[in-house]
Amino acid sequence: MISVDLNCDMGESYGVYALGNDDAILDLVTSVNIACGYHAGDPRTMRRTVAGALAKRVAIGAHPGLPDLAGFGRRNMSITPDEAYEMTVYQIGALEAFVRAEGGRMHHVKPHGALYNMAAQQDKLAEAIAEAVYKVNPELVLYGLSGSKLIAAGERAGLRTASEVFADRTYCRDGSLTPRQEPDALIHDPATAAAQIIQMVKSGTVISREQIEVKLKAETICIHGDGEHALAFARQIRELLQTEGIQLAAG
Amino acid sequence: MISVDLNCDMGESYGVYALGNDDAILDLVTSVNIACGYHAGDPRTMRRTVAGALAKRVAIGAHPGLPDLAGFGRRNMSITPDEAYEMTVYQIGALEAFVRAEGGRMHHVKPHGALYNMAAQQDKLAEAIAEAVYKVNPELVLYGLSGSKLIAAGERAGLRTASEVFADRTYCRDGSLTPRQEPDALIHDPATAAAQIIQMVKSGTVISREQIEVKLKAETICIHGDGEHALAFARQIRELLQTEGIQLAAG
Amino acid sequence: MISVDLNCDMGESYGVYALGNDDAILDLVTSVNIACGYHAGDPRTMRRTVAGALAKRVAIGAHPGLPDLAGFGRRNMSITPDEAYEMTVYQIGALEAFVRAEGGRMHHVKPHGALYNMAAQQDKLAEAIAEAVYKVNPELVLYGLSGSKLIAAGERAGLRTASEVFADRTYCRDGSLTPRQEPDALIHDPATAAAQIIQMVKSGTVISREQIEVKLKAETICIHGDGEHALAFARQIRELLQTEGIQLAAG
Amino acid sequence: MISVDLNCDMGESYGVYALGNDDAILDLVTSVNIACGYHAGDPRTMRRTVAGALAKRVAIGAHPGLPDLAGFGRRNMSITPDEAYEMTVYQIGALEAFVRAEGGRMHHVKPHGALYNMAAQQDKLAEAIAEAVYKVNPELVLYGLSGSKLIAAGERAGLRTASEVFADRTYCRDGSLTPRQEPDALIHDPATAAAQIIQMVKSGTVISREQIEVKLKAETICIHGDGEHALAFARQIRELLQTEGIQLAAG
Repeated sequence: MISVDLNCDMGESYGVYALGNDDAILDLVTSVNIACGYHAGDPRTMRRTVAGALAKRVAIGAHPGLPDLAGFGRRNMSITPDEAYEMTVYQIGALEAFVRAEGGRMHHVKPHGALYNMAAQQDKLAEAIAEAVYKVNPELVLYGLSGSKLIAAGERAGLRTASEVFADRTYCRDGSLTPRQEPDALIHDPATAAAQIIQMVKSGTVISREQIEVKLKAETICIHGDGEHALAFARQIRELLQTEGIQLAAG
Repeated sequence: MISVDLNCDMGESYGVYALGNDDAILDLVTSVNIACGYHAGDPRTMRRTVAGALAKRVAIGAHPGLPDLAGFGRRNMSITPDEAYEMTVYQIGALEAFVRAEGGRMHHVKPHGALYNMAAQQDKLAEAIAEAVYKVNPELVLYGLSGSKLIAAGERAGLRTASEVFADRTYCRDGSLTPRQEPDALIHDPATAAAQIIQMVKSGTVISREQIEVKLKAETICIHGDGEHALAFARQIRELLQTEGIQLAAG
Repeated sequence: MISVDLNCDMGESYGVYALGNDDAILDLVTSVNIACGYHAGDPRTMRRTVAGALAKRVAIGAHPGLPDLAGFGRRNMSITPDEAYEMTVYQIGALEAFVRAEGGRMHHVKPHGALYNMAAQQDKLAEAIAEAVYKVNPELVLYGLSGSKLIAAGERAGLRTASEVFADRTYCRDGSLTPRQEPDALIHDPATAAAQIIQMVKSGTVISREQIEVKLKAETICIHGDGEHALAFARQIRELLQTEGIQLAAG
Repeated sequence: MISVDLNCDMGESYGVYALGNDDAILDLVTSVNIACGYHAGDPRTMRRTVAGALAKRVAIGAHPGLPDLAGFGRRNMSITPDEAYEMTVYQIGALEAFVRAEGGRMHHVKPHGALYNMAAQQDKLAEAIAEAVYKVNPELVLYGLSGSKLIAAGERAGLRTASEVFADRTYCRDGSLTPRQEPDALIHDPATAAAQIIQMVKSGTVISREQIEVKLKAETICIHGDGEHALAFARQIRELLQTEGIQLAAG
């Protein structure tokens, strides 16, 4: 039976600042990536989000980001591989302590934002992050962009990996995402997005923007949680996958 | 055979900012308290300090502090017990990940600065910190001011505790430290300080500023590492304890 | 003709985190206190909020707070008077640069949260803040709790001051606010709150919780902007003041 | 009479962390660039450094940097021009308030580290920074790398500019600095460095690494202040310039 994971970022509130629809999303996904205090999240939010995920039996992952709260971890920074290693170890550890304190176990690590994107393209950063995950806990699953250098580095390090795909993004012939500044980067039609997801999960392929069929591993699907529209789309994707007989589960 | 622990704060550098004589101190102490990024310390410093302590077979503790880098965690903040719990879990976890990545095991937790002082006096904060330590890892030893509410809370929580004493501070008749603003708060004469330490460790008593003999548990001695004078004094204390036949070891 | 100022805190967003109903409030108040990056606010928010206030011809004030973004500046910190002076100078300057860049002039300074409360009660902090305001620009008006040490310190320093009152708080017989932990600290009935405001502005008195008439200067009224309820109440207060023939203007 | 400015970064301490030889350097330079709290510097350090510079009658500049204390502002970040504008306005304002409070006037602005380097190469960032300086105070002088886009943008904006040169760096045929990763990027021989400075200041040329004479404006010389070696070299440069009859003054 085919199986796929639905993951979503959460725990992105900070102090008095609330962000996201975490409670609603917890009912829709099979795994969550929880911010660890660098790009978002504070200890209170981490504690509550971990407790919420454990209550709903959703797999918990650390979501380490760049030390850039003002930029939400979305601005590239020229960090060294050592710095990537160190900030990843730090953030995984901080989140894992909450998971342990609440009686659970951490399942995976998914880098956030600019760290995710840089690790998809830069070998040395990818290796540093994979090493950080492995050294803290070799049982953790490394989530990364399908076909990226991060997935390759995770495999080389001996980690289990989960190749991530996007419902609402178009792909290039080499399997990479169409850059966001391109006019056709995003899929706005829910039906098209849904069809793409089903094809990716069932046949391991995607039709690129050049109309070429490209091979692609689809082990986990990134669900966005901001706004009611996103929630409705997530529900739709979820039902469609179930209708197609695809099992929803964290790997 | 009587045994006592010599502990010192370290890993207090941050980015380009170097602080302390960590290498020299590692040869003198039996345990270290490593800053975790809130009042001092960054991931690079934490990694290096952990590696250095493991190489010297010195017991490693987390040294969680208030989120106040500008004030070095020395300014009291009116945090709630929940906030104390959460910032303690966060920081212990962050440090423990480095210890695990380097192949070691964490030994203890000692709150830093204003958090240490507030936890010595406020029951609810003390309980919150003890609960944080216990929930992350019930094997950890909780270091706190001898006779303080933190030690009491640690014992109630089921933790092993280490009662800390100071060579260079005078004590009041109730076993508390003379407040720093008092003129006789500090012991400036090395011989007097040394004699006080030996008495505390060997007979479990101290002569208070009122010239009264007071009972007091002395399981770990706080060594200061700033400045060559401090290092020389630490060496002197260490030799004196050994001469007296007292074993130096983390509990 | 009697005149009073309606002020509101704003510019409290940070990065991706949005807070408050700043646009709606700008139509209701005569002055705003803009966060300066310590407890809330980032340079982008400061720029936009300043531009919005200038467009609506609302008086602009700096709203310096404690360096505690995670706690929104609401947690007391044991800062020294020198530290209070320095963080006030820093934050006033940062905001004033935006005001000048947008072609406007800064009108006042109102400390935020815990800094406001501590400055109301502690002479030395109050003096340090007043000195900071005076040295940066002696034309600035210092806003503080009516009857507080901050207002007194501002007057001694040679500053113009604006004594602030609250519609939704009860007062003690000495003119201080009933502490928030008391059950009768807040006025929940809009009619009672409105009547209290009118009395304070028109007759310079308030009926304390002990049912005693107390003298009290009411030069500026603090308007809360969080939530639709608060906006509705602000509109009601504004209309009532106008109906009573009271002029609305920043002093 | 030929004149040149000697500038040095300072005020880079933070909290308990001390950095630099600010007092010694103040006797050697004609202008200083003071950190503003983003990459280094805190309000206390800013206040003291401003007071020290005013006492020695040295021209004071703001030294705005990226919001990256952990990386000392040396890591490139993909900020937008708007963000560059906003962080520059913020930091200039913060420092200027201290200058005004101490009774002085600010003279110039020099971006720090990665912000300086990015502004040297990226037109849009350079324009945003120049606009920020102009809007806060059109009398301020903009310091930037000689021949860089920042200097060009400053001139287009209507600012006075100061073209900066380095004694200890080699130059390429296009007048740019040899990238630091190249083996011949640095000049280690004091005599060679001194000769280069004199040639740059007196004849407005430099011999590039390809042994070609290149035109280059030398209005201000960057002096490093870290370490006793740097101080000795600064003294040597200073004496040499005076021997050559060159006036030392901020422009």
